[in-house]
Amino acid sequence: MTHLSRRTLLGAAVGTAATASWPRLSLAATPSGPLAAEIARRHDENVQRLQAWIREPCIAAESKGYETGVPFFIKMLRDAGFQKVEQVPTSGKPGVFATLDTGARKTLGLYFMYDVKQADPAEWSSPPFEGRLVDKPGFGKVLMGRGAVNQKGPEAAFLSALHAYRAAKRKLPVNLVLVAEGEEEIGSPHFGEVVRRPEIAAALGKTVGVFMPSAMQDPDGEVTISLGAKGVIELELVASGARWGRGPSKDVHSANRARLDSPAFHLVQALATLVTPDGTEPAIDGFADRARPLSAAELQMVKRAASRMNEAKAKELLGAKVWIRDEDWEHSLLRLVSKPTVNIEGLVGGYTGPGGKTMLPSRAVAKLDLRLVPDMTAEGALGALKAHLQKRGFGDLEVNMSGGYDPTSTPADSTFVKTLDAAYRRAELDPLLWVRNAGSWPGYLFTGKPLGLPAGHYGLGHGSGAHAPDEYFVVESSNPKVAGLDGAVNSYVTYLETLGA
Amino acid sequence: MTHLSRRTLLGAAVGTAATASWPRLSLAATPSGPLAAEIARRHDENVQRLQAWIREPCIAAESKGYETGVPFFIKMLRDAGFQKVEQVPTSGKPGVFATLDTGARKTLGLYFMYDVKQADPAEWSSPPFEGRLVDKPGFGKVLMGRGAVNQKGPEAAFLSALHAYRAAKRKLPVNLVLVAEGEEEIGSPHFGEVVRRPEIAAALGKTVGVFMPSAMQDPDGEVTISLGAKGVIELELVASGARWGRGPSKDVHSANRARLDSPAFHLVQALATLVTPDGTEPAIDGFADRARPLSAAELQMVKRAASRMNEAKAKELLGAKVWIRDEDWEHSLLRLVSKPTVNIEGLVGGYTGPGGKTMLPSRAVAKLDLRLVPDMTAEGALGALKAHLQKRGFGDLEVNMSGGYDPTSTPADSTFVKTLDAAYRRAELDPLLWVRNAGSWPGYLFTGKPLGLPAGHYGLGHGSGAHAPDEYFVVESSNPKVAGLDGAVNSYVTYLETLGA
Repeated sequence: MTHLSRRTLLGAAVGTAATASWPRLSLAATPSGPLAAEIARRHDENVQRLQAWIREPCIAAESKGYETGVPFFIKMLRDAGFQKVEQVPTSGKPGVFATLDTGARKTLGLYFMYDVKQADPAEWSSPPFEGRLVDKPGFGKVLMGRGAVNQKGPEAAFLSALHAYRAAKRKLPVNLVLVAEGEEEIGSPHFGEVVRRPEIAAALGKTVGVFMPSAMQDPDGEVTISLGAKGVIELELVASGARWGRGPSKDVHSANRARLDSPAFHLVQALATLVTPDGTEPAIDGFADRARPLSAAELQMVKRAASRMNEAKAKELLGAKVWIRDEDWEHSLLRLVSKPTVNIEGLVGGYTGPGGKTMLPSRAVAKLDLRLVPDMTAEGALGALKAHLQKRGFGDLEVNMSGGYDPTSTPADSTFVKTLDAAYRRAELDPLLWVRNAGSWPGYLFTGKPLGLPAGHYGLGHGSGAHAPDEYFVVESSNPKVAGLDGAVNSYVTYLETLGA
Repeated sequence: MTHLSRRTLLGAAVGTAATASWPRLSLAATPSGPLAAEIARRHDENVQRLQAWIREPCIAAESKGYETGVPFFIKMLRDAGFQKVEQVPTSGKPGVFATLDTGARKTLGLYFMYDVKQADPAEWSSPPFEGRLVDKPGFGKVLMGRGAVNQKGPEAAFLSALHAYRAAKRKLPVNLVLVAEGEEEIGSPHFGEVVRRPEIAAALGKTVGVFMPSAMQDPDGEVTISLGAKGVIELELVASGARWGRGPSKDVHSANRARLDSPAFHLVQALATLVTPDGTEPAIDGFADRARPLSAAELQMVKRAASRMNEAKAKELLGAKVWIRDEDWEHSLLRLVSKPTVNIEGLVGGYTGPGGKTMLPSRAVAKLDLRLVPDMTAEGALGALKAHLQKRGFGDLEVNMSGGYDPTSTPADSTFVKTLDAAYRRAELDPLLWVRNAGSWPGYLFTGKPLGLPAGHYGLGHGSGAHAPDEYFVVESSNPKVAGLDGAVNSYVTYLETLGA
């Protein structure tokens, strides 16, 4: 969904892992063999490729950079060994479809985004589109730039793995099918047009699943395998006198409140019906009817996670003293993975400057996000909301949905997930299995009908600052628990070897 | 109250008078006699004095211009003949106290404001602090500048009347006691410190009442005598996770809504309790207990106003199709003068930019104004609101009151009001008696305890654009129904002569 980076999706869970809550070996054990040697040897080249990409930003919200950014991305894929690379037109920015066929037994699907979030240079300590290498205490040398971790760093690391295979003259152990979009940061409004193309759907259908290269390590080096993600709809609820036919149709002096209805109060009254009286849970009629309770295995997964993760640290990161309804840690995690939500992202109406202004506004807006769990759907949630409002006398409110994803789910016992797990264990990590991200991503296009594929995120390495100033990706790690760029590249080799074995 | 000009106070009533709903003579009958001759002769000097004042703005919100603006204003009063002019220190900007004693039988009180609202030159068609004379179709030559109508134009016109008396060597028929403030545009926070000074209160106590010079004519030339004004409290209601001890204390990813309370929904739920289920009337416990119903005479006044004023025009000006609860015109006016209100001026919380942002905001603010009728008080209203919130589980909300006025009332049968009426009638106008303005002004400092004086607004002339770009005051009228500057000055002579007779 809009404004969701991989880090923020996972941060809710991973960011709260305890520092040393279970024993494991250090990452420091250096990978060996000809592929590892090529990765080490080509370190500078790999950094430079990432820097060059940072300097070619495509920004969907500003419709900027596509003229040169798309050809640049396509050339990167060709250079990495993809035999067929096609630009795929959509109603928005182009997608990309690429294949690399080595005649292997298995085929892996890959999801890339080539766009990045906007950046205001004034807020950055180094130019956001330069990709400067800077020292970051506690982490080592990091590449700073927009897209460093979300998502160019990890994606470039994956491509560097392909370069290593070629340089080492080793056959890639799996075939690849890659789909990419340039509008992830505005909520992937046209990516369905790419995935649903018959030849692309057919190619994806042959894969064992689809992953997105990600820097999955938190600052303590821990990683999580998430088995899905909540869905979401994001929308504006707009009350206006003009549409309502009551109150003023333009802003008027507030003295008139005595004789005119208030669109702002109309909005407030509508919002108040959307949650339970204690403000915690959705109260939209029929909204959660299809919400599936957690299975025994999923409950067990949460229980295990609760014991491995640190509640005090989670509360500190969130600036929170108590969980909803004063529940305990385990229940807060159960809610995180299993409860649909109704959230107010923002309220805007009337006079919003300093102090007051005696006006009766003609219009007020609430920005909402509603999160969905299986088997709810974005379409069903929108319909439930509209029917709820209609039934309660708020049918005049505009419901402007800006984007939505269905929930995604991938079975824990799938080969895809087992391979992710095995690959991490080869790096001496003990990944935490997680029911689903409380954030959302367009993975439903792979896991939903008709493809029904496993999908998820994978990769070592660490970075932060997605959508924020000074976004970074660790290039040379000074932290023995966290992989640098070479470690990230090696993690993709590990995965490909594990899958192809 | 903040942001309330005299025009906007009265606009609710006067702005909706019908064009030709009752017969009367034209204003065109030129005043005669030596005073009128002096006024005509000194026209250019009077315009230049006003222009010079426009070029000396004092702006309370920006704390600008007082160093030279206060001495300028004091000199203006001295030049107009006030014998004693004192700067009165307050905790904020200085007030001014001035007297002009001619040994007359009666003493008139005057309320002046010497400050003006901010102005952004980029939005104006002529520089706001120049006071340029421009042609305005339908009105004639107008002076354009910040403060032109709110309130320097009418106040300067009053001073020009004093200059005319002196030039004509005529004795002023009444004594004058003037109090002025430089913070009207931020809600008169320290004006009470001026009025309550023993020597000032004593001087005011000897007056027949206090008026503020105003350009009372609407574009059709009609005038209203208002017998009071509603009171008001203006405040921000702030919900924050930090203060609540629930939800996040900083903005966090909206995925966390599943396990964290929402300060924005907390605010919405509190707001929803403040009005009746249909959203129309206050539902704050005890808030309106002291609201006095209209007397038979007041009801009659509204009935008469309803027949003289034009409903269709009022609705058009407000962009409204229906009144609250689908009531008729007369009931809408009854509400306007007699009902306390709870209004949302503005809503601000979380992400307020274009599109959405998946965040759970830690803080949300509603800007409210609550209007009061006799015998409610600002203090009582604030107490009722706080107790109401406390009782319903919203005691954690900050209630930040930025300003407040008690309601004001002046008896229709007071000599003060009868003199206003007689003065207008000498200008061949048929003033509409009005129960009270639905807007608010600091008149309660005069009408309330301990002074208990009549108070109101008076003056011919027309202008508009208070608090807006291109504020103007008609200097040479091309509209036979509307007075220009000379007519405005004459109207003060008429009042002084009527009162002194």
